[in-house]
Formats: sequence, C-alpha cells, structure tokens
Amino acid sequence: MTTAWWQEPIAAPDAEARAAAAARQNQLTKPPGSLGQLEEIAIRLAGLQGTAMPSLERVHVTVFAADHGVVAEGVSAFPQAVTLEMVKNFARGGAAISVLARELGAGLEVVDVGTATDDGGPAGVMRARVADGTANFCDGPAMTADQCEQALQAGRAAAERAMAAGAQAFIGGEMGIGNTTAATALACVILREHPRGVVGPGTGLDAAGVTRKAEVIERALERNADVETPFAALAALGGFEIAALAGAYVAAAQCGIPSLIDGFISSAAALVAVRQVPELAPWLICTHRSAEPGHAKVLAALEAEPLIDLSMRLGEGSGAAVVVPLMRAACALHSDMATFAEAGVSRG
Amino acid sequence: MTTAWWQEPIAAPDAEARAAAAARQNQLTKPPGSLGQLEEIAIRLAGLQGTAMPSLERVHVTVFAADHGVVAEGVSAFPQAVTLEMVKNFARGGAAISVLARELGAGLEVVDVGTATDDGGPAGVMRARVADGTANFCDGPAMTADQCEQALQAGRAAAERAMAAGAQAFIGGEMGIGNTTAATALACVILREHPRGVVGPGTGLDAAGVTRKAEVIERALERNADVETPFAALAALGGFEIAALAGAYVAAAQCGIPSLIDGFISSAAALVAVRQVPELAPWLICTHRSAEPGHAKVLAALEAEPLIDLSMRLGEGSGAAVVVPLMRAACALHSDMATFAEAGVSRG
Repeated sequence: MTTAWWQEPIAAPDAEARAAAAARQNQLTKPPGSLGQLEEIAIRLAGLQGTAMPSLERVHVTVFAADHGVVAEGVSAFPQAVTLEMVKNFARGGAAISVLARELGAGLEVVDVGTATDDGGPAGVMRARVADGTANFCDGPAMTADQCEQALQAGRAAAERAMAAGAQAFIGGEMGIGNTTAATALACVILREHPRGVVGPGTGLDAAGVTRKAEVIERALERNADVETPFAALAALGGFEIAALAGAYVAAAQCGIPSLIDGFISSAAALVAVRQVPELAPWLICTHRSAEPGHAKVLAALEAEPLIDLSMRLGEGSGAAVVVPLMRAACALHSDMATFAEAGVSRG
Repeated sequence: MTTAWWQEPIAAPDAEARAAAAARQNQLTKPPGSLGQLEEIAIRLAGLQGTAMPSLERVHVTVFAADHGVVAEGVSAFPQAVTLEMVKNFARGGAAISVLARELGAGLEVVDVGTATDDGGPAGVMRARVADGTANFCDGPAMTADQCEQALQAGRAAAERAMAAGAQAFIGGEMGIGNTTAATALACVILREHPRGVVGPGTGLDAAGVTRKAEVIERALERNADVETPFAALAALGGFEIAALAGAYVAAAQCGIPSLIDGFISSAAALVAVRQVPELAPWLICTHRSAEPGHAKVLAALEAEPLIDLSMRLGEGSGAAVVVPLMRAACALHSDMATFAEAGVSRG
C-alpha cells in the first residue's frame, strides 16, 4: 500500500522566529498590546515564515470552479449556467476577485475542475476537469474516490505553482452554483450537526428556499451516512472545487506556505482538510467572518478568530483578498516602527 | 456679535450621486449585497464626493499633540515626557502612524498645539502652541474660551491644508499623555454618563488605576458642572489636541472633505463637534472599534458602525489609517467590477 501524498509531512511553525517577533513587538514605541490583532498576526506570520521580520508582498490566488449535481434539487437562487459565465468573468478581469487581485499585485489563476458544460476552455482558464460536474448526492456519492483524488491533486498542483512563484501566502477561491449546499452537507457530517443548525441562504434564497435546502441536505446525509474518513466525506458530499481547495491547503502547508481562508465554503474545505491532516492547523489563517450563518460553527471548530466581519458572502476568495492589506500593515508596523531605545521614548 | 467660523454652512451629501452608486452596486456581477459593508462604504463615499465613482487615493493625516494638567493626579501609565518624545518619533518616521501614512502614500503633518515643554520645535513639527499644556481640570477649566478657540483654529488650519493638497479624506490623530482622561470626562458630560460607566485603562492602567481615574473625572465633572454648550464643555474638560480635532472635523466638512474618525479620543472630539454642529454628522466616518471600553458608548451616540474591531487602542490616527485600504478596495470593486450586462452573466 502506498502512502497518499497528503500524508507527507508538514513542518511545525518556527517557535524561535515567533518568540523573536513577540519580543520585538514589546520593544516598539507603543503601549504593549495596543495594536491588538495586528500584533498577533505579525507574530504568527513570523513563526510560519521562519523569520522575525515577516512580509506579505507576494500572494498567489487560485479560484477553482465546478458544478454540482445537487442543483437539480432547486437549492440555488442562480441558474447553473452562472458558474461557467463567472469563470469567463474571472478570466476577463471583471469579477470581484479579479479586481482585488489586481489591487494586491497578486497573480490570479482560474482553474476549471469540472463545470457542467465543457466549452473547450475559455482564454485564461486552466483546465483540470474531473467531470461535467458532480453527481447529485441525494442519489449517491457526489464523486468517486478516484475523482476526489483528481480534484485534490488539482489543488496540490496550484499550491506547487504558488511555491514556484515564490508566494508568501496562498488564497484559494471557489465558484460553483450550489456549493453552499455541498459545503453545508460536509460541515454537518464533520461536525455532527443537523442541517437546520448550519444551513443558510447562500447567494440569496428566501426562507422557504432555505427550508427546502435543509431538507435536501438531510436526504443527502441519510444517503451518504457511510463515510469513514474526512476525505471519504469529501468524496460523498463535496464538490470538485471544494476538494481542490482542501488539496491546495494541505500541499501549500507541505511547501511551507500559509493559506488565507476565505468564507464559508473555503472554511468547510479547510475543516475537512485539517480533520484528515491535523498538522495542517497552524498553516490555516481564517481571514473574515462571512454572513452565511453556518460559518460561525465552522470557524469555532477551526478555533479561528477572523480579523474582520464585513457581512461579506461572495466567495471567490474575495474576503481573504480584502484582508491582505491589513496583514501587510501588520508586517509594515512590525518591521518599520522604531523601538523605545531607537526613538529615545520613555517606557511606562 | 460676529458668527463663529464653525457656524458657517456644511453641505448635505449629494443624494443623486449616492443613488447612482447604489444602482451601480446592484448591476455588478455578484449576488446583491454580497460585498456587505464594502458596498455601503462605496455608496456613502459617492454621496460625500458627489460622484457615482468615488475614490480614496489622496488622504491627509494630521496628528495633534498636547499635554494635560490632569496628569498631576496620576491618571496615566506613562510619564508626561512621552508626549514630546513621541512628537519627535512621529516626525522622524518611527511611530505607528508614520509607518501607516507611508504605506498609504499619505501626507503626515505633526502639529504641536501645546506640549508641556517648549523645546523650540523639533524638525518636521508644525507649531501652533496654545500653552504649555492645559490646566488641571480638577481645579478649574482646562483652558480659557480664547485658548479653546485657538486650538479649534489650529484644527481648521490643518483641514484647509488638506483641502489645498486635494485630499479626499482627512484623518486626525492625537498624542497626549492623559488624554483618555480628558476624552472620558468630555464623553461623560455630553452623554450624561457617570465616569464609572465610561472610564477605561487608556495606555495600560491596572484596575486600581482605573478606579482612581474615575474618581479624578468625577471631581472634574463636579468642578466644571456649569457648561452650556458642547464647545464650552470642550474648553472646560478637553485638551488642545482634542479641540484641534473637533475644529478640523468641522472645517473639513465645510470644505467638503469627509473625516475618518480613529478611536476613543478622536470619537469623543467628533461627538463634541457634532453636538455643536449637527450638520457635521454625515461627514464623519467612524473607522474602527477601539478596545477602550468607553468607545462603544461614544460610537452608539454617533450612530456609527465601524468597519473593523481589531482590539486596537493606540490612537495617533492609526486605526483610521489601517481602514483606508479596505475603503480603497471598496472603491476599486465599485468602479472596476463588470456589470451583469457587460460580462454576459445571468441574474438569479
């Protein structure tokens, strides 16, 4: 039996670099702790980057897109065609993540891991198609074990491109009409929650739509009750883009690159990944609290305190991208502020 | 009797530009509302800038510094000498606001409105000294009415320099050992709160220090009970830097420039200013929620919902500066995202 690639080792953060950064924070010309979470984020990045002076100039963004068989159950406010339409919008630079990546000076990749229609590949879109969308998981598993491994591998390949580009952080985004349904189903099975306690409106369902979505997920959980590992749950209830995110997070950590986790769907992918590969945990930085109600439970399970809560609920990696300037500010303050000794300022 | 300059008119935001921006947000390729507060901030800036396509490239930062007679009562964790030491640190580029202003490409002015010691004016510091610090407001008013007008005028002059520089937003920062005590006293008199319900640790008092600080403020409020207007309260219980902030906020609004309000002290200055000049309200954008406990009550009185809460409590304008990249992202998304029609994306 061979070892799967995701079982290869992940290093622990560098405790010495972290301690040096924490010591430096207490020398800077400000009351101790007065920069709040900006201090913590600089210290955390120091440990992950293995240097007392972290920076975040080079960020790599990959958006994975795929379709979901479960949309046949009427779980989304938007038609399935929107997945491929938005893929083209990402590639042409008109989507939110396109704008944000430009503002950050970050590379943006768009990877089709399985939209419902194969139109031959729009310009600027990488192809790693597993199938024409997943199967409807109300009728059986969303994907086979082999398909799940292909999708995980598509994520791993993106993380390796990020490493080759010298990225200091990886942002994974997702697009897939119906994917809050898949992410909710996954969160429910991992957290042993009832769908009614996790489900939300996604892109904009009304109350009746949310009730229906919970019923659909309940059926899916009954149909796919027999899962023994987190990645088996991913195959049964996930989506290709969700599996790609999970694979990317694990592979990025193996490369020594932290991942900035976006909203509900990305966090569900991170949760599955960290339950399969526990050493991944310190490499996941949850960036924002989404308006999707289930996100709070997933964040709690990840023991994460995101930096911002702007009631965003767009996905695409957009929330993670919005937080990058705050993390850059944290690094700049950490590196560039004078110490008490340098500035000749008295201590309290 | 002449009319004071702060009674000169302030324009209302441009309702047409605001409506045009709101309409545009609903055309962009995302579920309506899915960018959360980033949508609201772009729409609000549109109204303030009088254009459907707002931007925030040019930001002007002025830090006002002054000392406080009330430090004789032992209300601060740091010695009074730190005010002037930090003034030099601002000017030499080593303080948090110095670093953040550089990151934003923003101009940074440092204005001495009355530190305790006049050392002749360090390089890079503008002089608008009212006195060698305020009087101890436990013994009588902190300043005379004439001194208060001088400090308000120092703020007005900064706002006029911001306008001359073409600023699209004004950030006022403050430095003054003891100034959370003054700001708390002001908040108490304006909000009719007892000091125990507003007081906090400032730069780092322990519990006994906070109790003592509340008692000092209680004495100050008894000694200065006889105030008839918000600006009379400012003279009795404020500081020169707090009055300068209040003056700057009013003058910036008169110039059509919104102010980005920092933390507890800046918000107390904003509260005094808006109670004196109610038309100022729409021009004040509260940026972050400070860790100083009294800030929540001041924000509630300003009917403000800040964008972030990072447990910052540094002052200097630092929290407002940290939020600028989020506002810039909001403007970029608003201006640069494709519409549904442009991108050929189906609506829900």
